[in-house]
Amino acid sequence: MIIVLKPNIAKSAEAAVIKGIRALGYQPHIMRGVARTVIGAIGDEITHKSLETLASTFPQAVESVLPIQKRYKLVSREAHPSNSTVKVGKHVIGGKKFHVMAGPCSVESEKQLLTTAVAVAKAGATMLRGGAFKPRTSPYEFQGLGEKGLKLLAKARQETGLPVITELLSENQAELVAEYSDILQIGARNAQNFQLLIAAAKTGRPVLLKRGLSMRIEEWLLAGEYVLANENPNLMFCERGIRTFETYTRNTLDLSTIPIIKKEAHSPIVIDPSQGAGRADLVVAMCKGAAAMGADALLIEVHPNPAEAWSDGAQQLTLDNFAKLMKELKPFIKAAGRE
Amino acid sequence: MIIVLKPNIAKSAEAAVIKGIRALGYQPHIMRGVARTVIGAIGDEITHKSLETLASTFPQAVESVLPIQKRYKLVSREAHPSNSTVKVGKHVIGGKKFHVMAGPCSVESEKQLLTTAVAVAKAGATMLRGGAFKPRTSPYEFQGLGEKGLKLLAKARQETGLPVITELLSENQAELVAEYSDILQIGARNAQNFQLLIAAAKTGRPVLLKRGLSMRIEEWLLAGEYVLANENPNLMFCERGIRTFETYTRNTLDLSTIPIIKKEAHSPIVIDPSQGAGRADLVVAMCKGAAAMGADALLIEVHPNPAEAWSDGAQQLTLDNFAKLMKELKPFIKAAGRE
Amino acid sequence: MIIVLKPNIAKSAEAAVIKGIRALGYQPHIMRGVARTVIGAIGDEITHKSLETLASTFPQAVESVLPIQKRYKLVSREAHPSNSTVKVGKHVIGGKKFHVMAGPCSVESEKQLLTTAVAVAKAGATMLRGGAFKPRTSPYEFQGLGEKGLKLLAKARQETGLPVITELLSENQAELVAEYSDILQIGARNAQNFQLLIAAAKTGRPVLLKRGLSMRIEEWLLAGEYVLANENPNLMFCERGIRTFETYTRNTLDLSTIPIIKKEAHSPIVIDPSQGAGRADLVVAMCKGAAAMGADALLIEVHPNPAEAWSDGAQQLTLDNFAKLMKELKPFIKAAGRE
Amino acid sequence: MIIVLKPNIAKSAEAAVIKGIRALGYQPHIMRGVARTVIGAIGDEITHKSLETLASTFPQAVESVLPIQKRYKLVSREAHPSNSTVKVGKHVIGGKKFHVMAGPCSVESEKQLLTTAVAVAKAGATMLRGGAFKPRTSPYEFQGLGEKGLKLLAKARQETGLPVITELLSENQAELVAEYSDILQIGARNAQNFQLLIAAAKTGRPVLLKRGLSMRIEEWLLAGEYVLANENPNLMFCERGIRTFETYTRNTLDLSTIPIIKKEAHSPIVIDPSQGAGRADLVVAMCKGAAAMGADALLIEVHPNPAEAWSDGAQQLTLDNFAKLMKELKPFIKAAGRE
Repeated sequence: MIIVLKPNIAKSAEAAVIKGIRALGYQPHIMRGVARTVIGAIGDEITHKSLETLASTFPQAVESVLPIQKRYKLVSREAHPSNSTVKVGKHVIGGKKFHVMAGPCSVESEKQLLTTAVAVAKAGATMLRGGAFKPRTSPYEFQGLGEKGLKLLAKARQETGLPVITELLSENQAELVAEYSDILQIGARNAQNFQLLIAAAKTGRPVLLKRGLSMRIEEWLLAGEYVLANENPNLMFCERGIRTFETYTRNTLDLSTIPIIKKEAHSPIVIDPSQGAGRADLVVAMCKGAAAMGADALLIEVHPNPAEAWSDGAQQLTLDNFAKLMKELKPFIKAAGRE
Repeated sequence: MIIVLKPNIAKSAEAAVIKGIRALGYQPHIMRGVARTVIGAIGDEITHKSLETLASTFPQAVESVLPIQKRYKLVSREAHPSNSTVKVGKHVIGGKKFHVMAGPCSVESEKQLLTTAVAVAKAGATMLRGGAFKPRTSPYEFQGLGEKGLKLLAKARQETGLPVITELLSENQAELVAEYSDILQIGARNAQNFQLLIAAAKTGRPVLLKRGLSMRIEEWLLAGEYVLANENPNLMFCERGIRTFETYTRNTLDLSTIPIIKKEAHSPIVIDPSQGAGRADLVVAMCKGAAAMGADALLIEVHPNPAEAWSDGAQQLTLDNFAKLMKELKPFIKAAGRE
Repeated sequence: MIIVLKPNIAKSAEAAVIKGIRALGYQPHIMRGVARTVIGAIGDEITHKSLETLASTFPQAVESVLPIQKRYKLVSREAHPSNSTVKVGKHVIGGKKFHVMAGPCSVESEKQLLTTAVAVAKAGATMLRGGAFKPRTSPYEFQGLGEKGLKLLAKARQETGLPVITELLSENQAELVAEYSDILQIGARNAQNFQLLIAAAKTGRPVLLKRGLSMRIEEWLLAGEYVLANENPNLMFCERGIRTFETYTRNTLDLSTIPIIKKEAHSPIVIDPSQGAGRADLVVAMCKGAAAMGADALLIEVHPNPAEAWSDGAQQLTLDNFAKLMKELKPFIKAAGRE
Repeated sequence: MIIVLKPNIAKSAEAAVIKGIRALGYQPHIMRGVARTVIGAIGDEITHKSLETLASTFPQAVESVLPIQKRYKLVSREAHPSNSTVKVGKHVIGGKKFHVMAGPCSVESEKQLLTTAVAVAKAGATMLRGGAFKPRTSPYEFQGLGEKGLKLLAKARQETGLPVITELLSENQAELVAEYSDILQIGARNAQNFQLLIAAAKTGRPVLLKRGLSMRIEEWLLAGEYVLANENPNLMFCERGIRTFETYTRNTLDLSTIPIIKKEAHSPIVIDPSQGAGRADLVVAMCKGAAAMGADALLIEVHPNPAEAWSDGAQQLTLDNFAKLMKELKPFIKAAGRE
């Protein structure tokens, strides 16, 4: 850590800060600059207590405390310089092949799900998404079919061969969801529900971790650290839009996460443009951008009849529009060096 | 709902929209304005499906869809025009008396907790806070003493008479925490962990619901609706700062929530300036502002030795500073018509 | 406008609101719904006074007031359904050809500018950017070479044939900058400096309007309206990142503005990834995304020696990296149907 | 500056960074820690070039660059430890006396202004506000009466003795506005229009600098630095709400700016709750909070008939409500130790 002292403080005040640094187990190293004196506190910031309290303990003497170590380890490129890949059935995410996970926001009925699954498979999707447990802002909105939805997803997998991804909302559902689903999704609202992250990690299933609505990159990486630290290497990050002041779109899809995650971490990065935009008419352009920028996969909401969807109809593509999108995407996937 | 049509659309397009409105169970009512035609869709927006999908179903004809009903019911002033109060031991929150809940961020040891509890009681606090289960951004940070921490809180209550408030992180802890604690706290990261909200509500204990870092007022009220809809009327809202672009403070404490919650809802509003500022040196002014603006209670972090705190030392007051704050607060509490 | 009344209000209160609507020149139209009564106020919202004051005039009776008309006219697709193009020298922005405007953040010297201009021209850039008047957060930072910088830009144009784009900071500079520059740039900090917008528009030169750091799409379109309303049709919008809670990047580049501006407005959309990221290592991916999503042009900062740049070195590409980027961009531009 | 190196880099890479530091005029000072090597670069960060480019020049070797000096000087408490006060007519802002500046959003007519001025003076306001030049999001909205408005303000001052504060939008108006107005207001949209700040400073009149909608504290202080560096010591900061994701209020009034500005700077801090809330019904509570937290003055919009106001009617108080507010404020002003 770096401790910046205020200008013109008494020698005794400086000595007190130095004593405080030693008391917390760090070795102080003084550096006198032109306008400020700075103390380097040498010690491992991850295993030692934070020195940030020095600023409030010595408010007259300490101007600021700057951490210098990264707080994440296992997700970092330092720990694992090459790309990680995640195996899902016969597919590999994070490798040469570009993947598209598609399906309805919520599983509503056998007919709705199977129609969608068959159509997205035909259009080129490699995995099937569908919500069985739905986190809804209001208690009066449709909360998902639950286990019945999971069974329909398993049936759709059997019929189409598409591996399945679905969200879990509770530690107590982890075993159940892992039984039916090939990938466990942690939603944006639960991205810092650490108990849920641990329970999902412990099933051993691949975990797709959505970014929380107001999560900084560092916090997202640290949430991913909870998965890796619980001995599950099959982690994927999924950007789905952050909350900003803009009201035209539901969220602001932050596509810069693609080069950033690739730079800082080794796990695959997936983009969810449906949640990001909240509007089907913007999804196509966002998919193209994501493919061009190097995303490993897309997660897209598709519904046979969005107007009658039980949740988030406004952001779901029709089957026809999805097939059209898949065609339009091809040159961009190829230009990005993917298949 | 109000459906705004695009200008100059064909009669047949308009007719299709009207048919769509009827199909979703609403009664259309046409209103031709100067620049736009508007359709009022008459029906209960809470029990009916949303018409927002019309904008994507008829992208050439529908410009926007505006909901007009409030989505929350039980938390609203319409449902309960007078103030609700919450009984905690011999105390009543939301009435004439102003309350201060104080104590350490984390319970660390018997000595640390009892020293703090005795000191804050003496200074005038009426309840004791302390974290036993801690949600930490990094898996390498101190995660709380767990049940041992709960037992220490119960012991401190016995010694001081102060009712206890502590956070729970998991549905599976709800019964356990309710056994030891007088108030259950839902933290900001779990504010839309609806399974946790339901589990907390079902214990029957008062629930203090912190605002999520990027939660709009409406979403916060709807999260509160999950508590009331699960037959627990003892709800309190707690503002603790939202995430903004500002980096000087850890969060931006939104004190306007005091008049807003008082206007929209009937439950008490509590302010947590420690989390809001993340800096002890700003806490005092924020407490004064909160008292002046009509908050029902404060939730303040206090530690005998913040520099050695196991979590969030920078934002915890010393025992002396807390006692000084309590004295300085008095005229503001009185000016606000409280005791 | 739509006026939503509170439930269960007295007939007399309703009558007062209706009278208020008439007093402001609108024709009221009552619609009784299941949970709310709604009044459509018929009249032109652009020429009439806003009814939003009704909510504060009749706080017991009016719940909310919803505008239904778009506030922008000339920039809107309704006013001009096909794409607008902007002629700059022999080039056309907004047509089939994709453009790249490149050059240093600040003009520093003849050698620096000419070296850059020649190199970017060779690599395929079609226009030259360079700051002569620099808006700097601190008064102690380099403020630009001023008119000397403009003269160097003109010289570089003569040598390379590249049209020039540069920023103006003051109404009083409008004539001067227009004399030397082919495109006038309005920077993010001045995006709602309406006097500057008007002065720039009146020169008749094409205007590139950057999005302000916290500008909503609607406000950006309305700022563009100031240009068109002052009889200058040569408007371009330029996204350069918005301010969010994220600190990893300097700003969050909102690439969703590409499909949004294309949908709402008819003017070209340009992307500035250098300001958006604030980090050269992220610029390449962002350029690919922008090209893929349908941007009309890019605005990229390039410097012969970024480490010695007088401003914003961290976000400027080297000449070699720029040439490499131009090659890598080609397949994406082609995939987007551009040249 | 502090340069943090990546772990495990080659000696030659480290040597190159050190050479780079020297080339930019700093003295390097190496500190080897447990997990990172850190280089302190000794030199004046205000007069030297920034080292932040090192991160892009040596992307394989440099992890991050941390500035340690504050970028503002004249506004800082280090430069001027005691409070500054601003003299306006016979009044002193920033001293013992608490001030209220009140008046209409826009000057509309002699009758409107004089009625308001007389009423606010009677209720206890000490200064008169009123907009003559109005920055409006849309070119179709009322832009102010201009010089005629200034003359009406001067007349109202003559009749009531209240000094006048009004906004200027253009460098070219600085002399004119300074002729009529006692305080020059820089609005939020122009808070980083540095040419305007310089022009306003040079008139010698007191300058009230509103915080921009997405301005960090540091940027606001640096904008203030433009005023002081142009030899005008009569600076006041005015918080009026920042832009956040919340849509219930127009902006989020950040009252924590009161203790922060008091801590970092020596100039008075004024709170504008009308812009901050955008809703008259929230203004009263915000005024109480501001007074309690130590603000030096309030800036409040008051209109004889808000429903017919030509701008921002929803946030203006009636004359009666203003008089009531002034009475209710008294105990809070007293509790804060002011008169």
